[in-house]
Amino acid sequence: MIKAGIIGATGYAGAELVRLLLGHKEVEIKWYGSRSYIDQKYASVYQNMFQLVDASCMDDNLNELAKQVDVIFTATPQGFLASVLTEEILKQVKIVDLSADYRIKDAAVYEKWYGIEHKSPQFIEEAVYGLCEINREKVKGARLVANPGCYTTCSILTAYPLVKEGLIDPDTLIVDAKSGTSGAGRGAKVSNLFCEVNENMKAYGVASHRHTPEIEEQLGYAAGREIVINFTPHLVPMNRGILATEYASLKRKADGSLPSSEEIRAVYDKYYAEEKFVRVLDAGVVPETKWVEGSNFVDINFKIDERTGRIIMMGALDNLVKGAAGQAVQNMNLLFGLKESEGLELVPMFP
Amino acid sequence: MIKAGIIGATGYAGAELVRLLLGHKEVEIKWYGSRSYIDQKYASVYQNMFQLVDASCMDDNLNELAKQVDVIFTATPQGFLASVLTEEILKQVKIVDLSADYRIKDAAVYEKWYGIEHKSPQFIEEAVYGLCEINREKVKGARLVANPGCYTTCSILTAYPLVKEGLIDPDTLIVDAKSGTSGAGRGAKVSNLFCEVNENMKAYGVASHRHTPEIEEQLGYAAGREIVINFTPHLVPMNRGILATEYASLKRKADGSLPSSEEIRAVYDKYYAEEKFVRVLDAGVVPETKWVEGSNFVDINFKIDERTGRIIMMGALDNLVKGAAGQAVQNMNLLFGLKESEGLELVPMFP
Amino acid sequence: MIKAGIIGATGYAGAELVRLLLGHKEVEIKWYGSRSYIDQKYASVYQNMFQLVDASCMDDNLNELAKQVDVIFTATPQGFLASVLTEEILKQVKIVDLSADYRIKDAAVYEKWYGIEHKSPQFIEEAVYGLCEINREKVKGARLVANPGCYTTCSILTAYPLVKEGLIDPDTLIVDAKSGTSGAGRGAKVSNLFCEVNENMKAYGVASHRHTPEIEEQLGYAAGREIVINFTPHLVPMNRGILATEYASLKRKADGSLPSSEEIRAVYDKYYAEEKFVRVLDAGVVPETKWVEGSNFVDINFKIDERTGRIIMMGALDNLVKGAAGQAVQNMNLLFGLKESEGLELVPMFP
Amino acid sequence: MIKAGIIGATGYAGAELVRLLLGHKEVEIKWYGSRSYIDQKYASVYQNMFQLVDASCMDDNLNELAKQVDVIFTATPQGFLASVLTEEILKQVKIVDLSADYRIKDAAVYEKWYGIEHKSPQFIEEAVYGLCEINREKVKGARLVANPGCYTTCSILTAYPLVKEGLIDPDTLIVDAKSGTSGAGRGAKVSNLFCEVNENMKAYGVASHRHTPEIEEQLGYAAGREIVINFTPHLVPMNRGILATEYASLKRKADGSLPSSEEIRAVYDKYYAEEKFVRVLDAGVVPETKWVEGSNFVDINFKIDERTGRIIMMGALDNLVKGAAGQAVQNMNLLFGLKESEGLELVPMFP
Repeated sequence: MIKAGIIGATGYAGAELVRLLLGHKEVEIKWYGSRSYIDQKYASVYQNMFQLVDASCMDDNLNELAKQVDVIFTATPQGFLASVLTEEILKQVKIVDLSADYRIKDAAVYEKWYGIEHKSPQFIEEAVYGLCEINREKVKGARLVANPGCYTTCSILTAYPLVKEGLIDPDTLIVDAKSGTSGAGRGAKVSNLFCEVNENMKAYGVASHRHTPEIEEQLGYAAGREIVINFTPHLVPMNRGILATEYASLKRKADGSLPSSEEIRAVYDKYYAEEKFVRVLDAGVVPETKWVEGSNFVDINFKIDERTGRIIMMGALDNLVKGAAGQAVQNMNLLFGLKESEGLELVPMFP
Repeated sequence: MIKAGIIGATGYAGAELVRLLLGHKEVEIKWYGSRSYIDQKYASVYQNMFQLVDASCMDDNLNELAKQVDVIFTATPQGFLASVLTEEILKQVKIVDLSADYRIKDAAVYEKWYGIEHKSPQFIEEAVYGLCEINREKVKGARLVANPGCYTTCSILTAYPLVKEGLIDPDTLIVDAKSGTSGAGRGAKVSNLFCEVNENMKAYGVASHRHTPEIEEQLGYAAGREIVINFTPHLVPMNRGILATEYASLKRKADGSLPSSEEIRAVYDKYYAEEKFVRVLDAGVVPETKWVEGSNFVDINFKIDERTGRIIMMGALDNLVKGAAGQAVQNMNLLFGLKESEGLELVPMFP
Repeated sequence: MIKAGIIGATGYAGAELVRLLLGHKEVEIKWYGSRSYIDQKYASVYQNMFQLVDASCMDDNLNELAKQVDVIFTATPQGFLASVLTEEILKQVKIVDLSADYRIKDAAVYEKWYGIEHKSPQFIEEAVYGLCEINREKVKGARLVANPGCYTTCSILTAYPLVKEGLIDPDTLIVDAKSGTSGAGRGAKVSNLFCEVNENMKAYGVASHRHTPEIEEQLGYAAGREIVINFTPHLVPMNRGILATEYASLKRKADGSLPSSEEIRAVYDKYYAEEKFVRVLDAGVVPETKWVEGSNFVDINFKIDERTGRIIMMGALDNLVKGAAGQAVQNMNLLFGLKESEGLELVPMFP
Repeated sequence: MIKAGIIGATGYAGAELVRLLLGHKEVEIKWYGSRSYIDQKYASVYQNMFQLVDASCMDDNLNELAKQVDVIFTATPQGFLASVLTEEILKQVKIVDLSADYRIKDAAVYEKWYGIEHKSPQFIEEAVYGLCEINREKVKGARLVANPGCYTTCSILTAYPLVKEGLIDPDTLIVDAKSGTSGAGRGAKVSNLFCEVNENMKAYGVASHRHTPEIEEQLGYAAGREIVINFTPHLVPMNRGILATEYASLKRKADGSLPSSEEIRAVYDKYYAEEKFVRVLDAGVVPETKWVEGSNFVDINFKIDERTGRIIMMGALDNLVKGAAGQAVQNMNLLFGLKESEGLELVPMFP
């Protein structure tokens, strides 16, 4: 059995990790780290775990934890892991970091968008960006995996094949994303109260959201050059789910015509036909977040607009699963040579 | 592998059966019966099953189905099963009926509350009321299991130990129940439209809901005599979950005092300490539907009101799981001698 | 124009007062008191007021405010008004208190249920309980009006005629109430976060909620003696609305029969036929909270259960209007001799 | 008093018209037309109107109605008005049509996007597109007003000043709009059931929604030439509210620089500073649908992205008020020379 520790186990992403790992046959959770609830029963914080988890919350001492487990998941605020990580720790344990600390290769970009100093830039280079469908082989040999953000996972996977194959002009890419509220975390803020969110919608982080450079970097690799995009997240009154609607101009063929739907679909199939967790839907079926709820799936589809020459791509996932904890488990499976879908064969729950 | 057929597979309870059985290691679904969608891909009706279920919908020919499978789940409108069931069928296959056709032992009571004639009263006697925690042994040897209603499962399990042990006066029992909207089914009715249900609450079926006689019959067995109760269901703007708040007068002891909380708790423990799916919560923790969502748990707790001499009992479950499909699978496990929790070890999903 | 001041203007009840008073032809708001937002634009706290309210928030100096206005609304935490109220203030200004400070005539009962010392019990006697439909004449001459609680307004008005006329046994009264989340206020608490409330239901304050003694006192006046009842509030995932489902045993007539529906209806009509804000619905129509949303209406109906001899009474209101700010305005109208419905002729908003 | 008739009074837009007109001092509703509910009490269909509306539903005989009233509102399916309108009717009565029949000047475009033949193209020319803020003067003298669509009102008003002043390149315009579910109407469809919409999001009508040509036509007038855009509507789990997020490339100045935020704001102010119902929010405040709920406001703001050279414009309105019934009343006020805001001075309801 793989021994796992979670730092930040009482946030929503941490709690989802617990839910998934309890159903994982090869893993045992040894450490429920939560600075705010030390010594309290974990199940008193998340009553769904009553009689399923008997443990109490522990502190966030990474050095101590590294001695006791095989893998550490850090579902912590930005900057935490970077401030405590050492070579000593990495020699003892694999780390899957759900924060943004090692996602961006350029520390200056990280510091600009996150507004904090990066305390251990020496590990950035070796960290592997854990978008499994794209970086599978690199993840397998990693010590430190930077688990992608929820918006980014959805945004990148939805556009990746078309960027990679040069079918769209990446400079025209606009990502309009909508998220359920669990993405905002469990912090007690007026703006996240039921009465403020319910029956309401808004954009936020307009032209300034931190997932922007992450999307740009990864799609830039696919494009073979640096790109800038527009990314606008929105808050929607639901618990779980991200829907990304993406717009880009299709590159015309030599004869001036647009690629056909069949050609586009063939490109998606090339990348995703064998991917268990990416479902390219049948023609005419739009992705809906409810159909992937509770699962590790990303559902994707597209529509070509002949009138404007643009393609509208759509992707949907559960922000706490494929957008956080599920992908973290997928990365862990790769790290330890397990079946990639182990513990993740979850049928979406509807309604 | 046990071969299973589902009649009514495209209703919400039927779809939940599919979700659960897909995760059950000993069962294979061979028949997705749905009169409305014959020959259509099941996954086109429930997109969450895309790439998970390849089958198309079949008709509801029970005679044909009985030859092909080991167990049939009927998630059908009241009266359907009663109108087609034969001894011939029952000789070939086990049946778990999620409708009300065989729940009530007195056909006249059934006909009065449901307003339809019972077409096969000859099977009522042998049908076993499939509330596993109470009728476990009887279920094991049954051919025909009457799977309890969602409200009834919650209402009965919450009060059962106190009625059985004579701690409350059953004639004072009032059940005020609240349900999410999936209990109303997938029929296209104005009253179930999003805009009519959202931001709204109401009672319905006041003093006339069909689950009333079912609760009365089962708690009557526990009380050792016939009882009448008040049962009022309410519609609440959420997808899943039933919360039952139950009121009854405690019987005073010889010295005129009320039983203590410890005494009440001991009685609950006597019945449920060994039950995997019934969780009696710690003192002071109220059941919340969200903490059991997606799982087969019933969470129960109580509070004594010294001022009025009443006890307030509370129970919460997911109406589609323990209130329907989960309990049906639990019954199937008993019927076939499998581990009772097989396929049902689901961690509740939060948030 | 009547000059009004609001202390606690940035809570949900305070904001609803602002909404209603902006539409009131005889009133001008002169003071938006909010300790937390002093000197900030009121419309920056409640963006719905953008371009409608230009004022900034003021402190909660009641002495100063009393000199400037004709009426003060206090939508403040329990204990605040009791700790600052003086005879000097009452000589200058009318006060409508939306807190519980002067609702309960017995200071000891107040102190027991609220857990705080009452700092100015000398004003309790003269305070008028502002349930307009019952205490209309007393309110007219008052200096200090104790505006009833949201649950209490709904619970009392729903049962009052039957208690007053002796048709039910008040000791059998059980009130099972359900509320939207705005009743929990705008404080930043984890338990009120969107993800915790959405898709969830629970009881709270079981056998201990502070509105219990308030209901008991008022219905006790109607019954002509002290009574104790069970009152259980529940939290429901919606913004506004309270639904009270009330159970009581009907008193049988000399011949052992129950009163008929027509007799019960006649009693309701006796009390409410002339009441603009109490709507006794047609037979068979249940109150739904959505149908009164945004308005000052209470919708009421009932059903007799011949089997148990009980009556089920149901009442619905908007907790922020008739349950708080609307009733406060109604009281103000009475205090100043205005038309009672002035500023309150709001058509409920659906959907 | 102006006498008004409503055809389609039992749809959501029709019901909102009733709500607004009941609060309008100069109007009396004489005809509640509803083919589905003829002779039934209007208040039995919309219980919020109980004791406020005593009338029963009438048929949709426009010829008869024209004789009895001064203005007719048609909140009817596409094609209805076009199939019954005559010169005779227009000579007797003003018409505000909430359907799309006369919004588009080119009948061929209408027929292509709506898939039905236009039965009275002879009235298209004289019909005035009733977007009051833009066509105010034309509306005043009209007989037939084509009330704009909900999405279109929001989309156009949000972008109009910048298109009109040539600050953005209209061919780059992308409108990503999100709507509450009341926009889908009160028809009983599975896809609009609570359980299907709740906790769910999806795009629909991708690259094919009927409001596209309407936006293009009106913004084309502003641009001074034909334009094509991308418009993608989304369904969101809430009752009311539309949020439009719009993207366009800013035209660079001669020196290659982008216009400043101050310059953009000045342009918005030029068009909207005097508009009562258009609120350009303070810098940094994003429009949220909840802040305009129940009111006739459109809230607008924008953000420049220096990195991509695009501007992100955002607009929010209540689809049933400014997006339908409120705008219809505003048009009626203009038609009859009343104060434009009469009956529309509604404070948004929060929460």
